[in-house]
Amino acid sequence: METETNSSDYISSVIPGWFSEISPMWPGEAHSLKVEKILFQGKSDYQNVMVFQSSTYGKVLVLDGVIQLTERDECAYQEMITHLPLCSIVNPKKVLVIGGGDGGVLREVARHSSVEQIDICEIDKMVVDVSKKFFPDVAIGYEDPRVTLRVGDGVAFLKAVPEGTYDAIIVDSSDPIGPAQELFEKPFFESVAKALRPGGVVSTQAESIWLHMNIIEDIVANCRQIFKGSVNYAWTTVPTYPSGMIGFMLCSTEGPPVDFKHPVNPIDVDDSQRKSKPLKFYNSELHTAAFCLPSFAKKVIDSGAE
Amino acid sequence: METETNSSDYISSVIPGWFSEISPMWPGEAHSLKVEKILFQGKSDYQNVMVFQSSTYGKVLVLDGVIQLTERDECAYQEMITHLPLCSIVNPKKVLVIGGGDGGVLREVARHSSVEQIDICEIDKMVVDVSKKFFPDVAIGYEDPRVTLRVGDGVAFLKAVPEGTYDAIIVDSSDPIGPAQELFEKPFFESVAKALRPGGVVSTQAESIWLHMNIIEDIVANCRQIFKGSVNYAWTTVPTYPSGMIGFMLCSTEGPPVDFKHPVNPIDVDDSQRKSKPLKFYNSELHTAAFCLPSFAKKVIDSGAE
Repeated sequence: METETNSSDYISSVIPGWFSEISPMWPGEAHSLKVEKILFQGKSDYQNVMVFQSSTYGKVLVLDGVIQLTERDECAYQEMITHLPLCSIVNPKKVLVIGGGDGGVLREVARHSSVEQIDICEIDKMVVDVSKKFFPDVAIGYEDPRVTLRVGDGVAFLKAVPEGTYDAIIVDSSDPIGPAQELFEKPFFESVAKALRPGGVVSTQAESIWLHMNIIEDIVANCRQIFKGSVNYAWTTVPTYPSGMIGFMLCSTEGPPVDFKHPVNPIDVDDSQRKSKPLKFYNSELHTAAFCLPSFAKKVIDSGAE
Repeated sequence: METETNSSDYISSVIPGWFSEISPMWPGEAHSLKVEKILFQGKSDYQNVMVFQSSTYGKVLVLDGVIQLTERDECAYQEMITHLPLCSIVNPKKVLVIGGGDGGVLREVARHSSVEQIDICEIDKMVVDVSKKFFPDVAIGYEDPRVTLRVGDGVAFLKAVPEGTYDAIIVDSSDPIGPAQELFEKPFFESVAKALRPGGVVSTQAESIWLHMNIIEDIVANCRQIFKGSVNYAWTTVPTYPSGMIGFMLCSTEGPPVDFKHPVNPIDVDDSQRKSKPLKFYNSELHTAAFCLPSFAKKVIDSGAE
């Protein structure tokens, strides 16, 4: 699977010795990190995979030239995409993660003692293996005994899930160019809704309001048709993501109402008996704040609301 | 004042045709914007000044190699640094802006109909002139008849201000390397406190929690000694600032208490008779949300609280 590739395929160098993230998804701008050492380069069946040691952000995981996580700021994304849905319902028991092969979302799900079953469906085994090797503090999520890993296509996996199986589904995808494209489309959201119990919740990576209002508008419109409980957009700061932020769609299915803006299952105070490290980023105040949008985004996102 | 300078002084080497922001303030990372055309380059008594047309962020103002504003995202910074303080007190009448030579903060202050006097002290006339020429939608702030511009040193200006003059002071500075250094030091904050009326408010640019917790910790400690009303930290997303965000110190002097987290002077609903364009970014919900901090920052910032 792994092949030798010329490093110039990966280090699209704007600055010699630096990794620059250049993509048609964010034309005309690029974020660059200084590279100390390239630790891994491979090509899986799905994408190019690279890990490098950066000089100031720790180790960095890159898929198809796009930064997925850095050790320095991964806490923001992993904690928010996980606890925004799981702290919004009482006693989540069965949780499904689509994507998220690095294991960081698993690590966060595992903080919830009510959870009995954590399934993950990641399409790319190389991402799992590379994370276990180079990001032990992230991939530690796999060590929880409640976790079952399926390597395969999340879309196909979801279709086969019996109706109403999960309390929560977390879609930790890359951008809608490449292997994750279907995870932004309507049939996928329909499968998600079907796999959730009544009043179940989903959290999906939903791009940046500064860069992709058009994508977000489409996702919101799709979600409003499919999730009859509630449909919300939240966001968080992540310095190494384009525009320095990332958003999430938080939706619930018809059933017991879910008010995402007011968490009912707080996780702020860490159980002292727990082995895991304390939360670095998420807290209940920030949970509520994450749903407050700048006016230019609020206008577009609210415009489709009934 | 204006001198011819080799463009290589500014375009700190990248793919030809891109501007990269490289600074010891954020080692190991750089944000780059694609340059369509350099519109202005000059060297004032204080700093290098550049304006370029970017391919996707509109026109960009750069001082000493650091992006100060882009047409695409300037609304976030200007609206938040201005309305966080002015919406937190009833009937602000006299407002002082230190720095802010581009005029964007003036534009935002002018939205408040209670304001009778807007003084601005900017050290660098070239910034004012360049903004008026290239950023008319920002420098429009100067056209308000309540505005008086002083070109000079903000530190010296403040020392001469009679005690208790202003309801609000907004310190719109660049980073604490270069001409703005003194604006981050204790004697300056003492002058600010003296120039404010009892229960008056100050808003100052206060860097990023991802990059400069050590600077922020010092600023917070200084402010706690000097501002006996309240001391708070807020933040906002700004894609073209390092780490994609920027923070503000919001403090009040001893006197009528100011609860910054609950705005008492909302400006959401635009007065239809007003000539100015509607707010793009700020709203009351976002005002309150801006004070909610990630746990790693909250821990440090709250630790000095009485």
